[in-house]
Amino acid sequence: MTAKVAINGYGTIGKRVADAVRAQEDMEVVGVTKTRPTFEARMAVSKGFDLYAASKDNVAGFKGAGIEVSGTLEDLLGEADIIVDGTPKGSGYRAQYEEAGIKAIWQGGEKHELTGLSFNSQVNFEAALGAAYLRVPSCNTTGLIRTLYPLQVAFGMKEILAVMVRRAADPWDTRRGPINAIEPVLTMPSHHGPDVQSVLPDLDIQTIAVKVPTTIMHLHTVTARMKREVTVEEVLDVWRRTPRIRLVKGAEGVKSTAQVMELARDLARPRSDLFEIVVWEEGVNVKDRSLYYFQAVHQEADVVPENVDAIRAMMTLEEDKRESIRKTDLSLGIPPAF
Amino acid sequence: MTAKVAINGYGTIGKRVADAVRAQEDMEVVGVTKTRPTFEARMAVSKGFDLYAASKDNVAGFKGAGIEVSGTLEDLLGEADIIVDGTPKGSGYRAQYEEAGIKAIWQGGEKHELTGLSFNSQVNFEAALGAAYLRVPSCNTTGLIRTLYPLQVAFGMKEILAVMVRRAADPWDTRRGPINAIEPVLTMPSHHGPDVQSVLPDLDIQTIAVKVPTTIMHLHTVTARMKREVTVEEVLDVWRRTPRIRLVKGAEGVKSTAQVMELARDLARPRSDLFEIVVWEEGVNVKDRSLYYFQAVHQEADVVPENVDAIRAMMTLEEDKRESIRKTDLSLGIPPAF
Amino acid sequence: MTAKVAINGYGTIGKRVADAVRAQEDMEVVGVTKTRPTFEARMAVSKGFDLYAASKDNVAGFKGAGIEVSGTLEDLLGEADIIVDGTPKGSGYRAQYEEAGIKAIWQGGEKHELTGLSFNSQVNFEAALGAAYLRVPSCNTTGLIRTLYPLQVAFGMKEILAVMVRRAADPWDTRRGPINAIEPVLTMPSHHGPDVQSVLPDLDIQTIAVKVPTTIMHLHTVTARMKREVTVEEVLDVWRRTPRIRLVKGAEGVKSTAQVMELARDLARPRSDLFEIVVWEEGVNVKDRSLYYFQAVHQEADVVPENVDAIRAMMTLEEDKRESIRKTDLSLGIPPAF
Amino acid sequence: MTAKVAINGYGTIGKRVADAVRAQEDMEVVGVTKTRPTFEARMAVSKGFDLYAASKDNVAGFKGAGIEVSGTLEDLLGEADIIVDGTPKGSGYRAQYEEAGIKAIWQGGEKHELTGLSFNSQVNFEAALGAAYLRVPSCNTTGLIRTLYPLQVAFGMKEILAVMVRRAADPWDTRRGPINAIEPVLTMPSHHGPDVQSVLPDLDIQTIAVKVPTTIMHLHTVTARMKREVTVEEVLDVWRRTPRIRLVKGAEGVKSTAQVMELARDLARPRSDLFEIVVWEEGVNVKDRSLYYFQAVHQEADVVPENVDAIRAMMTLEEDKRESIRKTDLSLGIPPAF
Repeated sequence: MTAKVAINGYGTIGKRVADAVRAQEDMEVVGVTKTRPTFEARMAVSKGFDLYAASKDNVAGFKGAGIEVSGTLEDLLGEADIIVDGTPKGSGYRAQYEEAGIKAIWQGGEKHELTGLSFNSQVNFEAALGAAYLRVPSCNTTGLIRTLYPLQVAFGMKEILAVMVRRAADPWDTRRGPINAIEPVLTMPSHHGPDVQSVLPDLDIQTIAVKVPTTIMHLHTVTARMKREVTVEEVLDVWRRTPRIRLVKGAEGVKSTAQVMELARDLARPRSDLFEIVVWEEGVNVKDRSLYYFQAVHQEADVVPENVDAIRAMMTLEEDKRESIRKTDLSLGIPPAF
Repeated sequence: MTAKVAINGYGTIGKRVADAVRAQEDMEVVGVTKTRPTFEARMAVSKGFDLYAASKDNVAGFKGAGIEVSGTLEDLLGEADIIVDGTPKGSGYRAQYEEAGIKAIWQGGEKHELTGLSFNSQVNFEAALGAAYLRVPSCNTTGLIRTLYPLQVAFGMKEILAVMVRRAADPWDTRRGPINAIEPVLTMPSHHGPDVQSVLPDLDIQTIAVKVPTTIMHLHTVTARMKREVTVEEVLDVWRRTPRIRLVKGAEGVKSTAQVMELARDLARPRSDLFEIVVWEEGVNVKDRSLYYFQAVHQEADVVPENVDAIRAMMTLEEDKRESIRKTDLSLGIPPAF
Repeated sequence: MTAKVAINGYGTIGKRVADAVRAQEDMEVVGVTKTRPTFEARMAVSKGFDLYAASKDNVAGFKGAGIEVSGTLEDLLGEADIIVDGTPKGSGYRAQYEEAGIKAIWQGGEKHELTGLSFNSQVNFEAALGAAYLRVPSCNTTGLIRTLYPLQVAFGMKEILAVMVRRAADPWDTRRGPINAIEPVLTMPSHHGPDVQSVLPDLDIQTIAVKVPTTIMHLHTVTARMKREVTVEEVLDVWRRTPRIRLVKGAEGVKSTAQVMELARDLARPRSDLFEIVVWEEGVNVKDRSLYYFQAVHQEADVVPENVDAIRAMMTLEEDKRESIRKTDLSLGIPPAF
Repeated sequence: MTAKVAINGYGTIGKRVADAVRAQEDMEVVGVTKTRPTFEARMAVSKGFDLYAASKDNVAGFKGAGIEVSGTLEDLLGEADIIVDGTPKGSGYRAQYEEAGIKAIWQGGEKHELTGLSFNSQVNFEAALGAAYLRVPSCNTTGLIRTLYPLQVAFGMKEILAVMVRRAADPWDTRRGPINAIEPVLTMPSHHGPDVQSVLPDLDIQTIAVKVPTTIMHLHTVTARMKREVTVEEVLDVWRRTPRIRLVKGAEGVKSTAQVMELARDLARPRSDLFEIVVWEEGVNVKDRSLYYFQAVHQEADVVPENVDAIRAMMTLEEDKRESIRKTDLSLGIPPAF
């Protein structure tokens, strides 16, 4: 069986999920939507995706630009088994998906309550088997879960504190600043902690967020109290056996998020994406029972593999978590961890 | 008595200390040094400071640019009671100062061991009375001491963690990057913790540093375990009674370091300097016994009042700490806290 | 006679004009308006300006924040002879000013047509004598006029081309980007050329604009065909005898807009403002009859002296252009050119 | 025949040329050099390139990091027919290449005089047939030649002025600033004009350069006097028939260099490279006989196709310019222009 996947909102996440779905043997993209005839819409067509107008009101715009559309979202819903919603937060399409009797995946802009199920491939793949609706939490939340969950399983932790030094805008988003300032998110602890708990309810985590003038990656500093004695090497070993984590070394020239992205470019993946969470080996420290580490998150890309696994689980294309992760990662060029 | 103060290195810190010393009734600036005939050298002369070449080798450069010098550092040492060293770290002038029999103050680029006495006006003014040599620790260290010390005295704290989101370069320094990256300081915990302990040896503090592409201020996120129950209001009250701390509100438009600096500009001080450490009222939170807060540090300016107080203590111009702070702050336009 | 000046909109320009007006012997500030109880409003009060709510709807906000207002704009209009409008473009207050029978000055956000008179102190002070309404053109336009007009008078020019590398946002404005991109203003030639011609109708000028991720200054590259042979030294001489132009040297460390602003900070003016247009001496070149130069414009400040002169002309406080410029510049710390 | 190509300096240009050479049917990469065991060196090995230490002194470093090298540059020279030198400017390898009897290509950091032949595929492919040494000029120079040469051929031009708004550092280069400043290149006209003339000696061009805090692309504003009347459409038509030029539209969301790079990422090329020079359609204007346009240059990538064509010409793998361009562009995913 091949799952017919629609993408509503061919933007930062949507276009990446479209490419990733196309790379799977058990899925196909039946169409993508766009509201306006931008270069991204044109690119979708030139890549061979069937383009649909998000609504009837948008059709004229595409015609005016000489871009052919295959219909509207309504038409697309009739073609698909499942839809990945990459529209801006609060777009409110759930009723329309329900009416069409189609499964749906939302992104981290939406609240947990929209679906009642927040998904991470490692943590709760099984809970998503056959599910009709779920949410893949945000890039930052997914990033924290990736490195914390295996440590929690291996050692137990409490009093986790993550300070999230956030990129202020995506690379293409030139309207947003700041250009030269640091902006604390004064609502402290930030929303990221509860968001992690939507997937890992028992994790004892607080988060603090600060926005800085960069576009390429988020950087987290994480500290945690370990429930038992651990060594740096034990921690690294756990991560080496965990999918979608990539260890890097400052000593090899990876000094900042800039060189992490340069490394990603050298990997020759589409859009120079880095699906893995990056941890600096030299930045991992243990003092008494406190663990400290730095990680970097490519905000545009890290949730893409989770979206693919979520489709596989919801469509019951694969019931074994490790097998789904293996297929997804192989197709995206992510080195296997097991 | 009027203390005769020399400034070795009329740069970022040196030129500010020169102006601040000139604003005191019990001090005067007998001269400042510079190595090259830059616009800053020219400005020193136009402000009426006697300019000295840092060494004989530098004299020709000034002549060539038509800038008159009053001699060299060696000459200046003969004019002064005390010298404030604002030269780059490791410049190694101590022997020369000793030979001239002159007291000296170094900045945070130097290690504690150079003088054995690291100074903060609030913490150890008395220890500096009559001292021959001391060091004013760095802007970040001074900033942490300013807000932590009064809390430590009032409530007691342990397990303090400060994550320091650092400006990558000063506003005038156009050679340094990064332009678009976040760079973790992989040596973790960073050197700032031990540096705080050079003034407050018993403080239980860890620090983590991250460099970001901004020039105007550092921002710290601080968390601490309080030894007794405290409320946000109690914490704010302590800071309101502490000199050189300024509370700001996001609700009044101070959302980031950019608006903090805009506020500083509105204060109409020379160079738009902000000598105070800024704390966001809405960013102060207490959860169980954990305290969280954000503070911002104007890296070019916060150590200036400490330099003035240090001169006063070392020259025994004033023996009462509160009186020295009062004089310094009044002269610099810093609102009184007591 | 002392002119009673009101400021509508105590923002980037308004607050600077307020301080500048206060520094004049023949003017006083009778009040400033603000819409919301921000730190700037609080600062206006602490500086001793009478604060008025922009409208009745805004009064409650100030009360809620504990900031006392002296009334509303309507009340303020009754107190003043003339108003400087620093509100966002298109705010549309002209009818209200007319009804109150008050003179008014607008800023460069408004079009020339609003007043029919666009003002520059050097060019058309006389035309403003007794005028009821005028507009001070934008920072970029004023900057171009400052350096081009004296050259036009001295030598004659044609085919002027100015490429304006524009700061993308003011220092306090953290919402706007881009963070890492260069953005051409595709409408080419840009609106700045015609805007210069609103003051200098016969100037043969084209302008091109490009937006870059910096906050502190605009930089212009200007080229012009001279009507007669000129030397670099002749050009510099003209500018040395022109008010509000400051020559700087790369060789003295002024390599970029960052060091220009550092120099401005060293001048110890309020807000570290640079009212003068900066030209790099080494960047002035003549090849055949083509002149090339670079200039930098402090976008927040360069129009402030023009606003003061405009008030003086409109209120007929002074009929001699050079005398008004002399008074304004002396009060603001701008070195005299004649 | 397959040309055996070596790459000395597997850095920004070297690694791209290596991938491009590998994509040709008539060339192969026999090895690449590196001085230190960085992540880029590791990546070269994982891509299957034979890695050589730049010198014997570097061998130990690679061993220490567990990276196997196939020998040193000296060994590599024995394996290759031709070498592409991507080392920092002034590295001075020419004597070593001559001794090894190997052909060589340098990049734009070197002066024209090093080889006496500066290459552009369109302009002087024939001159490079069988040549032993040549230089591919810099990204900016190549970018100007790409758009100017076809216009010169089609219409004739004089008094060309290019203002080059330059990225201050490459994306991976985090040491360089400025972070928040605009820096004019005071040597004006800049060196780029003469550099263009190293390929097109008769072109009447002046260039001015300004450095800005961005990492992703250079942007040029170009103006020229046309020798005959032209229309915008005629100009666009010429460029549509010219290889390696890509027209974009602001109206389709390509507002700045950020969206240009986003478009490049969507093209799914390795490293998200944009080999083409980008021109904004709406930014092309003609007024009287003056032409104005904006173009953007991906500084890391635009010279890559020229390097490939240069190899083909020097090794006489292909004698027809258009055929070489066709092969190169097809292999790199650049749309054909003829």
